[in-house]
Amino acid sequence: MKEKFRVRTDLALEEREEIELEDSELKGVIVEEKKNEQENIRVIKLTITNEHGARLLHKPVGTYLTLEAPEMAESSEEYHREISCVLAEYLKDLIQPYWREDGISILVVGLGNREVTPDALGPNVVNNIAIQRENEVDSQKISISGIVPGVMAQTGMETAVIIKGVVRETKPDVVIAIDALAARNSKRLNTTIQVTDTGIHPGSGVGNHRKAITKESIGTNVIAIGVPTVIDTPTIVYDTLDNLLKALSVSKHFKAMSDTFRKFNDEEKYQLIREIINPEMSDMFVTPKDADETIKRIGYTISEAINIATDVEKEYLM
Amino acid sequence: MKEKFRVRTDLALEEREEIELEDSELKGVIVEEKKNEQENIRVIKLTITNEHGARLLHKPVGTYLTLEAPEMAESSEEYHREISCVLAEYLKDLIQPYWREDGISILVVGLGNREVTPDALGPNVVNNIAIQRENEVDSQKISISGIVPGVMAQTGMETAVIIKGVVRETKPDVVIAIDALAARNSKRLNTTIQVTDTGIHPGSGVGNHRKAITKESIGTNVIAIGVPTVIDTPTIVYDTLDNLLKALSVSKHFKAMSDTFRKFNDEEKYQLIREIINPEMSDMFVTPKDADETIKRIGYTISEAINIATDVEKEYLM
Amino acid sequence: MKEKFRVRTDLALEEREEIELEDSELKGVIVEEKKNEQENIRVIKLTITNEHGARLLHKPVGTYLTLEAPEMAESSEEYHREISCVLAEYLKDLIQPYWREDGISILVVGLGNREVTPDALGPNVVNNIAIQRENEVDSQKISISGIVPGVMAQTGMETAVIIKGVVRETKPDVVIAIDALAARNSKRLNTTIQVTDTGIHPGSGVGNHRKAITKESIGTNVIAIGVPTVIDTPTIVYDTLDNLLKALSVSKHFKAMSDTFRKFNDEEKYQLIREIINPEMSDMFVTPKDADETIKRIGYTISEAINIATDVEKEYLM
Amino acid sequence: MKEKFRVRTDLALEEREEIELEDSELKGVIVEEKKNEQENIRVIKLTITNEHGARLLHKPVGTYLTLEAPEMAESSEEYHREISCVLAEYLKDLIQPYWREDGISILVVGLGNREVTPDALGPNVVNNIAIQRENEVDSQKISISGIVPGVMAQTGMETAVIIKGVVRETKPDVVIAIDALAARNSKRLNTTIQVTDTGIHPGSGVGNHRKAITKESIGTNVIAIGVPTVIDTPTIVYDTLDNLLKALSVSKHFKAMSDTFRKFNDEEKYQLIREIINPEMSDMFVTPKDADETIKRIGYTISEAINIATDVEKEYLM
Repeated sequence: MKEKFRVRTDLALEEREEIELEDSELKGVIVEEKKNEQENIRVIKLTITNEHGARLLHKPVGTYLTLEAPEMAESSEEYHREISCVLAEYLKDLIQPYWREDGISILVVGLGNREVTPDALGPNVVNNIAIQRENEVDSQKISISGIVPGVMAQTGMETAVIIKGVVRETKPDVVIAIDALAARNSKRLNTTIQVTDTGIHPGSGVGNHRKAITKESIGTNVIAIGVPTVIDTPTIVYDTLDNLLKALSVSKHFKAMSDTFRKFNDEEKYQLIREIINPEMSDMFVTPKDADETIKRIGYTISEAINIATDVEKEYLM
Repeated sequence: MKEKFRVRTDLALEEREEIELEDSELKGVIVEEKKNEQENIRVIKLTITNEHGARLLHKPVGTYLTLEAPEMAESSEEYHREISCVLAEYLKDLIQPYWREDGISILVVGLGNREVTPDALGPNVVNNIAIQRENEVDSQKISISGIVPGVMAQTGMETAVIIKGVVRETKPDVVIAIDALAARNSKRLNTTIQVTDTGIHPGSGVGNHRKAITKESIGTNVIAIGVPTVIDTPTIVYDTLDNLLKALSVSKHFKAMSDTFRKFNDEEKYQLIREIINPEMSDMFVTPKDADETIKRIGYTISEAINIATDVEKEYLM
Repeated sequence: MKEKFRVRTDLALEEREEIELEDSELKGVIVEEKKNEQENIRVIKLTITNEHGARLLHKPVGTYLTLEAPEMAESSEEYHREISCVLAEYLKDLIQPYWREDGISILVVGLGNREVTPDALGPNVVNNIAIQRENEVDSQKISISGIVPGVMAQTGMETAVIIKGVVRETKPDVVIAIDALAARNSKRLNTTIQVTDTGIHPGSGVGNHRKAITKESIGTNVIAIGVPTVIDTPTIVYDTLDNLLKALSVSKHFKAMSDTFRKFNDEEKYQLIREIINPEMSDMFVTPKDADETIKRIGYTISEAINIATDVEKEYLM
Repeated sequence: MKEKFRVRTDLALEEREEIELEDSELKGVIVEEKKNEQENIRVIKLTITNEHGARLLHKPVGTYLTLEAPEMAESSEEYHREISCVLAEYLKDLIQPYWREDGISILVVGLGNREVTPDALGPNVVNNIAIQRENEVDSQKISISGIVPGVMAQTGMETAVIIKGVVRETKPDVVIAIDALAARNSKRLNTTIQVTDTGIHPGSGVGNHRKAITKESIGTNVIAIGVPTVIDTPTIVYDTLDNLLKALSVSKHFKAMSDTFRKFNDEEKYQLIREIINPEMSDMFVTPKDADETIKRIGYTISEAINIATDVEKEYLM
C-alpha cells in the first residue's frame, strides 16, 4: 500500500484497485472482463468467493458487476439506450433465480433524498419505472411495484425498517434497490454502474444508511444498483496528501521528507491525517456543479434497463 | 331532500347539511358549536353516536371536528398562526387517549400524490413536520416520524398496505393521516379542516384510496386531518341542475316543468342524471387555478399545528 | 347553432366544429387533412385566410395544424416517438421561413405555472430541450435557448413583457411558445396538439395570459404549440344543459319544455346560463386525476420534436 | 500572508481576514461592528472607500454588510424571525436611496439553479416573496416583482442578459439579487449573510456567472444578498496543506521541512499547488449532506426580511 491511505469506497472494483497484487495472487476474488459488443461500455465481473476475499476488499461475499461507461454523463440518447440494454442483460441474469413457476413480483426501491441533487438518483429511477400490477406476459404474471422511502432526516425511521415493513406485507420475490454511491476516484463519478447481489451496506452512499439493506435485514432477496455521484470530502484530503508526496519525491528539496514519510507505519499516518482533516468535513460531500442534468439522465437510463429486463420494453431488445 | 340530488362529500358536516331536519330530529348525531376566542375561526363538533346516525350521514361512528376558516386561502401569516393554534388544541385532545405512561410515538402520514397540485397537501405537511427521534420533553419520550407513501399509480401497492407494513415494524401509538378531500360546496374549498378519529374511507379524496385507512386496516389508531381541495366533477353537474330548477321555478314559462320535476322520485332523478353526465368526467376533478400557493400555505399551517400539539413549538402557545 | 351555447376553446378546430356548415360554405377558412404514414396520428391543417374566417372562428388569420393522437395520454414509447417525428416535420416547415443565410436562433418559451400540474406542460418542455449555443451543423449556426418566464401570480409581471425584454436583448429569429390550453371537448384532453404561426391570445390556456404573445407584442416571430390539458368549468355547465335538453327532447313529459327552450334567442339563453353558473367556478378548471404522468410524457414528446426539428437528434429521422 | 495560500471567496469579510494587518493599517477599508440588540446575531459593516481598498480585498468599492448568525442552519423559528428583522432593517437602509417621491418598484431576482440543492437559495427566496402589483401603502405605490432567470446550462443565455431585458421593459428602481456564494471557511457555510450595494461579480457563487450583475450590466441599481452554501474544492486542498504544515511545524521530524516550505515565495507555492490539485476538481463543490433543509429555511428567512423591508409584514416590526 505504501504511500496510499485507505479511504472508504462503495465500489468493489475500486477496493480491488487499491491493492497492489496481481489478480492471481488475490485469493477469494475472481475478476473477469465480460465480452460486450458495444465499444464504449466495459463490463467487469468481480466475484468474492470466500471470507478471505471479503476481508481483502471490505465487501461481503457475492457478485459485483461494474459497467464502465465513460460518456454516461453526456447526453447522447443512443449511447444511453445501449447502456440500458447492456445493464438489462445483466439484470435479467441476476433476477433469473428469483422467478417462481408462474411469475415474479419485484419491488424497486429508490434510496436517497430526492431533495439533494446527487442523492436523488434512486427516487428518479422509481419515478420512471413502469409500475405493473399482475401484468400477464407469456402466461406469467409480472408485478413491478416501487417505493421511495426517504431518508432518516425526513422520516425519523431507519430506511431498512420501512422497506422491511413493506416487504412483509407485499412479499416481493426480489427487491431492486437503487442508491447513489461515494467513489474513491473522481473519474468514476457518474460513469460507473455497480450491480451486486449482496445488498447495500452501512457507510454506503450519500445518506449513510446506518443499517444494511440485505436479505437478512429486509426479509427478501436484494439486488443493488449503485452509481457513484459524490466523493467523500476526506478523499480529497487523502488525494492532496498523495499528490503532495508524489510532487515532493521528485524535488531535491523535499526528497528527505518524502522518504521519512514513507517509513511511517499505518498508525502514524492515521494520526497525521486525523490532525489535518477538519472534523466538519465528514458531514460534507463533493459533487459536480452540473449534477442535476447528469443524475436525471442516468436515472432514466437505469429505469429503462429495469423496464427492459422485466419485458415491458420488448422492442428495445430486437 | 326534495330537489336535492345526493352527491358524495368527504365532509360529515356537508352530509348533515344535506338533510332537511332540525338537529333535535337527527337521532344518533350530535352537533355542537365550540366556543373559540378567535373571531374568524368557527369550530363545529359533530358526533355520530350510533349506527342510525352513521347510516344517516354515510360516515362511521366517531367524532368529526370541522374548523371553518373562511380566509384560509389568503396569505395573512397571523391568521394562519391562529388556525394552527386552534387546530393544535383539538389535536391535543384527540391524541390524549393514546399517550403511554412514558411517552408517545406518532407517525404522520402524508397521503396523496405530490405531483398533482391539489393532492399534494399530505406530502406538503410531512415535509414541514418536525421529525423527532425519542425527544425527551418533561421526562416523557416523544417520537414523531413521517412518511409519504405515494399513490397506487406511482407505487403499484395499496397505500393502506404500505402504512400497515411500516406500522407493524415501528409500532406507533397513533397515526395522523393528512389527505386532500372532495367537497360538495365550492365555498368549502380550502377554507375547511375536518379532523376525525374514524380514519379515512374509500372514495375519499382526490386519489380515491380503494381501501380504508383505519385501525382495522393498518393496525393502530388513526386521526385523520382532511381539507377539501377539489370538487368532484359530477357535483358541478348536480349543482347546475339544482340552479336550473331554481331559476325555472320563478319563471312563468317553466313553472310547470319545474313542478313536474319535483314530483320525480329518487330513481327517476338518478336515471336522468346518469343520462346527462359524461362518463369520462368521473376521472376528473375541479380545482382553483391558484391551488399551488393555497395548498402550500395550508400544508404549512397544518404541520405547525402538529408541531405545536406535540410540544415542539411551545412559544406559540404562550 | 340551435341548442348549442358558445363556450371558449383555444382550439381552432373545435371552433370550426361548433359551426354547422359544410367546409365549402365556410368563406375564409380552408380545412384539409394531411396524408401521414402513421396510422394512429391524424393531422388537419386549418387555414384562416381572411378577416371573415377570423370572425367566424374567433381566431386570427394564419395556419393551425392539429395533430390528433388518441393514445397520446398512454405510455407507449414507440407511439410517442412517432408523434415526435410527425410534429417535427411540421415544425420544420413552420420554422423554415425564419432561417437566415448562416443559421437560425430559436428561443423556446415554456409558458404556464410549473407548480400547477396541468399548467406545467411548457416548463416541462423547456426542461428537456437540448440547449445549444451556436452549434455548427453543416456550416450553419444553430442556437437554441430556453426560458420559463413563470405566471403573473409568481412574478408580478406580464409574461409578454418578460419575453419582450429577453427577445430585445437576445434577438432570436423565432420564438417557439408552448402552452397548456383549455378544450371544449373532454375527448381532446391530452390527445391533441395544435401548432400555429399566429401566437398565443388572451383567454388562452390555464393561466389566462392577459396580453397576447405575438410578433406585435414581443418583437419577433412566434410559433405556438398548445395541448389542451384542462376544460373550463363553465364548459361542464353548458354540456350538462345540452345533455339535459337532449334527454328531455325524447321524453313525453318534457317535450314541451324542450321545445320552448329551443325557441329562446341567444340573449335569453345567456341570461339563463348566467343565473345557473356559480361565479366562483370561473376561477377553476377541470382536469384528469392522473394529469401528472400524462403532462410529463407529452412534454417530453414535444421537446423531442423540437430537438429533431432543429437537427439535434438526427438518428430519429433515419 | 506567510503559509496562507490565496483562494477565492465571495465574502468581503473573509478577504479582509486573510490579510494580517490591523484595521487601522488598511487604507481604503473601514470595518465597524454594528450595535444590535439580538445576542446571537453579529453585524459587521465593511466599506471599501477607494481603489486601494478594492485592490486589497479584490472587491469593488462599496458597502458590505455581513450578518453572522451562527445558528442559522438550525431550525428555531424564533431565531429565524429575529434574523429576518435584523436583515430587514439593513435592507431598508440600502433601499432608501432608490425611493421615488410617489413610491418604489423593486425586482427580486433569484439567481442560481433550482435543481441543484445548494444553488437553489435564490429561487427559494423568490418563491416566498409577497409579489405586489402597485400596492398602495401610506399613499405610496410599492411594486414587488420577482423572477428566477435560471442558469446558462438551462437557458443558453447569460443571466445578466435576461435580467437586462426584463429591467429594460419593467424599469424597476432597484434589483435585489439573491445568490448562493462560495465560502473560504466551512464555519461560514449557511451561517453568514452578506448584503452589498456593489452587485454580483464574475466567479461568485455556485454557478459561476460569467458576467457581472451590476448597474452597468443590467441598467438599474443592484443590491445583492448572498449566503455561502458551498466551499470550492480547491479550498479543501489549500486547507489540507495549511493543516499539514501546522502539524509538521510542531513535530521534530518535520521541523526542517516546514521551515523550508515557509521560505517558498508565492510563485513556488503556486507551482506546488498546481501540481497537487486534480484539474477536474474545479468543476465540483463541497456542500453539507443536509443542505436541503438548511437552504429552504434560509431562503424563507431572507424572503421574510424582504417582505418586512417592503412593509408587507408590518406586524413583525411592532
